[in-house]
Amino acid sequence: MRQIAIYGEGGIGKSTIASNLSAALNEMGYTVMQVGCDPKRDSTRNLAGGRLIPAVLETYRDQLRVGKDEYAISLDSIVFKSPGGIYCVEAGGPEPGIGCAGRGVLTALQILKDLKAFETYKIDVAIYDVLGDVVCGGFAMPIREGFAKEIYLVCSGGFMSIYAANNIARAVQRLSRRAEAGTGLAGIICNSNGDETLEHSVIPEFARRLGSEFVQFVPRTPVIQACEFEGRAVVEHSPNSKEAGIFRDLAKQIMENKKTVVPTPINDLTELEQMYRQHLNKK
Amino acid sequence: MRQIAIYGEGGIGKSTIASNLSAALNEMGYTVMQVGCDPKRDSTRNLAGGRLIPAVLETYRDQLRVGKDEYAISLDSIVFKSPGGIYCVEAGGPEPGIGCAGRGVLTALQILKDLKAFETYKIDVAIYDVLGDVVCGGFAMPIREGFAKEIYLVCSGGFMSIYAANNIARAVQRLSRRAEAGTGLAGIICNSNGDETLEHSVIPEFARRLGSEFVQFVPRTPVIQACEFEGRAVVEHSPNSKEAGIFRDLAKQIMENKKTVVPTPINDLTELEQMYRQHLNKK
Ligand SMILES: Nc1ncnc2c1ncn2[C@@H]1O[C@H](COP(=O)(O)OP(=O)(O)O)[C@@H](O)[C@H]1O
Ligand SMILES: Nc1ncnc2c1ncn2[C@@H]1O[C@H](COP(=O)(O)OP(=O)(O)O)[C@@H](O)[C@H]1O
Ligand code: SF4
Ligand code: SF4
Ligand SMILES: [Mg+2]
Ligand SMILES: [Mg+2]
Repeated sequence: MRQIAIYGEGGIGKSTIASNLSAALNEMGYTVMQVGCDPKRDSTRNLAGGRLIPAVLETYRDQLRVGKDEYAISLDSIVFKSPGGIYCVEAGGPEPGIGCAGRGVLTALQILKDLKAFETYKIDVAIYDVLGDVVCGGFAMPIREGFAKEIYLVCSGGFMSIYAANNIARAVQRLSRRAEAGTGLAGIICNSNGDETLEHSVIPEFARRLGSEFVQFVPRTPVIQACEFEGRAVVEHSPNSKEAGIFRDLAKQIMENKKTVVPTPINDLTELEQMYRQHLNKK
Repeated sequence: MRQIAIYGEGGIGKSTIASNLSAALNEMGYTVMQVGCDPKRDSTRNLAGGRLIPAVLETYRDQLRVGKDEYAISLDSIVFKSPGGIYCVEAGGPEPGIGCAGRGVLTALQILKDLKAFETYKIDVAIYDVLGDVVCGGFAMPIREGFAKEIYLVCSGGFMSIYAANNIARAVQRLSRRAEAGTGLAGIICNSNGDETLEHSVIPEFARRLGSEFVQFVPRTPVIQACEFEGRAVVEHSPNSKEAGIFRDLAKQIMENKKTVVPTPINDLTELEQMYRQHLNKK
């Protein structure tokens, strides 16, 4: 089973990329499970017709409240098959104000594993959509514990999204050596904020500095928002669009790319700012 | 000293609201300190000409690395006065992949307190800009430990921003009883996503359901982005604009409102969705 993780700044387009990637892989014939690892628990909303599916941690807490354990959970109460055939899971968040959200995500992943979700549904590809604004020990757990293996970072030409991606790369660098073999940075995806000239200039260099590859450019486009409004993936709702072709291309590239690296992030903020500014001045 | 906290979903406009509120309060004659409590450490960028000031936790880790403690930190290495006269602090984030980001924010706040920052600069109003996507024990600490007292939630007409605000209200409800007296929900601020009709319908009801007040409506406007591009607050860069008036109004309201409540969030997702849908159907 391939284990792909999509990390990046909040709002950069992780769930957009993840859900459209899942749908394209599904269309290619793979059996796909998408696991939202963001306390927002809305990763799979685009696949589920706009619906927020129940979250694993909520279901788990309900069981604990009545004195049961995780083995009292039925798989079909935490794994939901989208109309398109993609298996959807939302880890959920902690009880607000207490507990560790990241450790909660790990608990949810371990429940999936203990209940043999991946074997039961014969998953070929698992797509983990992971919060990237808080690069704490909690949210690094999917990497540390062998769930997130081939890590893709999503950024745009906006400096703060590159700063966030670089920070996540620092976590990947620290953790990948001790994580399972094959864990590491697999590539950089640009989800455009509209400034395409800047993006085609700065992001290839950023990828190079990380020791990785610039894998795909996704333009800013109303087609994506229109499909989101319908709660459907682009390849499902607009199958003949240019955007559908882009996601099919991304899916192919990801399945063909089995290389991961221990990234070499830029450790100094001033150096990162200078790298970025050079590309601003080129415009 | 008044201690105001701005919480809300990632990207909803916390830093926009916080920095423009700080500048308006400063213009009124108050001595203001804005403390970014988001690992993104970009809360005060709008006040500092686009600059990312050094983060407390980075400075602290540098000292620890050379065998020193927090008392080796000089206040002027963590508190930066903006051109407009606002004292700016960024808590910073954990070492990527390890540690607890929320506990790190608390450490940074305790350093400010131990070094007597508030007394030294004679702060009248402290504005805390706090991450709200992860409502974990870590990020609840500013509330638990007496820094965030008068809590304002920022949302738009977008369902997920209301969902996030409601989740934060659940944390406030749990924590405010045991926190310092006067800690609680102070009001709801709408930072518009453009859907003004929906917002003027759903947000007053949401505020009412929480037991709180709808305090201010901030329109979606290019003036805000133009000032951000200059790295300056609206009252500084566009002092005669309608938007400047809105932020001055918000500042006045916040200083006059000393009431906080233990909120009454909607605990059931289906109930929250139904509440929201009623207002959609009104359009
Ligand atoms: N390429 C794009 N073009 C247009 N809108 C986009 C694009 N990518 C994302 N969006 C929009 O941006 C918003 C945030 O995307 P989302 O995937 O939810 O971010 P994240 O999961 O990183 O928080 C969504 O409303 C989505 O429709
Ligand atoms: N009322 C508004 N009108 C136009 N743009 C806005 C408005 N509020 C925020 N923005 C823009 O939205 C983006 C996110 O705002 P920000 O304050 O950084 O969010 P947060 O701090 O919640 O993550 C910024 O680029 C900002 O310029
Ligand atoms: S480690 Fe991260 S998720 Fe866990 S409590 Fe701390 S900040 Fe929250
Ligand atoms: S480690 Fe991260 S998720 Fe866990 S409590 Fe701390 S900040 Fe929250
Ligand atoms: Mg998401
Ligand atoms: Mg912010």
